[in-house]
Amino acid sequence: MSKLRFSITMSLDGYVAGPNQSLENPLGVGGMRLHEWAIQLAAWRESHGDKGGGEVNPSSAIIDEMFQNVGAVIMGRHMFGGGTGAWDNEWKGWWGDDPPYHMPVFVVTHHPREPLPMEGGTTFYFVTDGIQSALHQARRAAGDKDVLIGGGADVVQQYLAAGLVDEVNVSLVPVVLGDGARLFDNVGGPDQRLEQVRVVQAPGVTHLRYRVAKSSP
Amino acid sequence: MSKLRFSITMSLDGYVAGPNQSLENPLGVGGMRLHEWAIQLAAWRESHGDKGGGEVNPSSAIIDEMFQNVGAVIMGRHMFGGGTGAWDNEWKGWWGDDPPYHMPVFVVTHHPREPLPMEGGTTFYFVTDGIQSALHQARRAAGDKDVLIGGGADVVQQYLAAGLVDEVNVSLVPVVLGDGARLFDNVGGPDQRLEQVRVVQAPGVTHLRYRVAKSSP
Repeated sequence: MSKLRFSITMSLDGYVAGPNQSLENPLGVGGMRLHEWAIQLAAWRESHGDKGGGEVNPSSAIIDEMFQNVGAVIMGRHMFGGGTGAWDNEWKGWWGDDPPYHMPVFVVTHHPREPLPMEGGTTFYFVTDGIQSALHQARRAAGDKDVLIGGGADVVQQYLAAGLVDEVNVSLVPVVLGDGARLFDNVGGPDQRLEQVRVVQAPGVTHLRYRVAKSSP
Repeated sequence: MSKLRFSITMSLDGYVAGPNQSLENPLGVGGMRLHEWAIQLAAWRESHGDKGGGEVNPSSAIIDEMFQNVGAVIMGRHMFGGGTGAWDNEWKGWWGDDPPYHMPVFVVTHHPREPLPMEGGTTFYFVTDGIQSALHQARRAAGDKDVLIGGGADVVQQYLAAGLVDEVNVSLVPVVLGDGARLFDNVGGPDQRLEQVRVVQAPGVTHLRYRVAKSSP
């Protein structure tokens, strides 16, 4: 059964980015500390085109699992990038000519644009009629495989609030940011019914998987 | 080496109590959901005078550990109770004649009162000159043993903000409260340097232990 899921790193006090996010500092003040567990890994370095070493530890399998059995990706327009003002039809994302997705990627945006095929099997589709439509198109593209919400946090929150997410993966780090963007704000708190499925302890991080319990129709 | 530590249950979105806390509903709206993992345990029922069954699972050892090697307890005045207005010298806490502590308990309060010896070894001492004084007295009473901050969250926050805590135990539950009392607010966020020490997965809860890294003098 195809699932809608996401994986995100969160501080112990619930932030997925620090305060004062900007184009120059998209993770906000202190936000890089969230990802220290990942950037030291060989699995992360390889997926970002760096073949130079890196660690192998229980987090490596978590990185690998993220894209396993995924048939389509959804992301927000900030994650795709392309400037703050006018939409730039020359912009092709942050990932170079051969993005690491190798599958259809649906960008939720207000700016219509023709599909953008890249090398290696990635094609960016620009969806202007909302998250439900993006999910519908992504599911159709994914077939029996899962749909991954790639980010950012605002798009993840919209899908959570709409009750559309099936699986939540949180990588919890022992960092206290004190301010910034909170993952579980404005998602209808008590309406979220999560069941703990799996916990993986790794150096400097705990990977938590929750299933979202659906209320009976 | 004697440690100052606390154990607290927190929602996935960082709350240790729901909104609208009151004398009648001290955990706030939805707050009881935080403690469902504990109240089903035999270990919890026994410590609350109920000998009737209950589960044994990996959380049982966590409950037992909480008071292991503890020589003194610190708590706030709300946790001790005794009314909202005038201090009531007849009030002897919520726990009956034989409280489950069996050791000195230091209550941080603004209301001076003579020490209150109870059955079974518990004596309540009322400390009116602040958290540093309470810690000093508790350490002296505990000797080589640890000092446990029993709660509530406001006292825990004060010790965290003052940089006096050595060990943080968070029991993280898959509950989203959306509003209420947040544990890690107003504790100087980025100044908190935590190191993940141990993770225990149990039904409906993940028990996380962090060591607080002390900056060099």
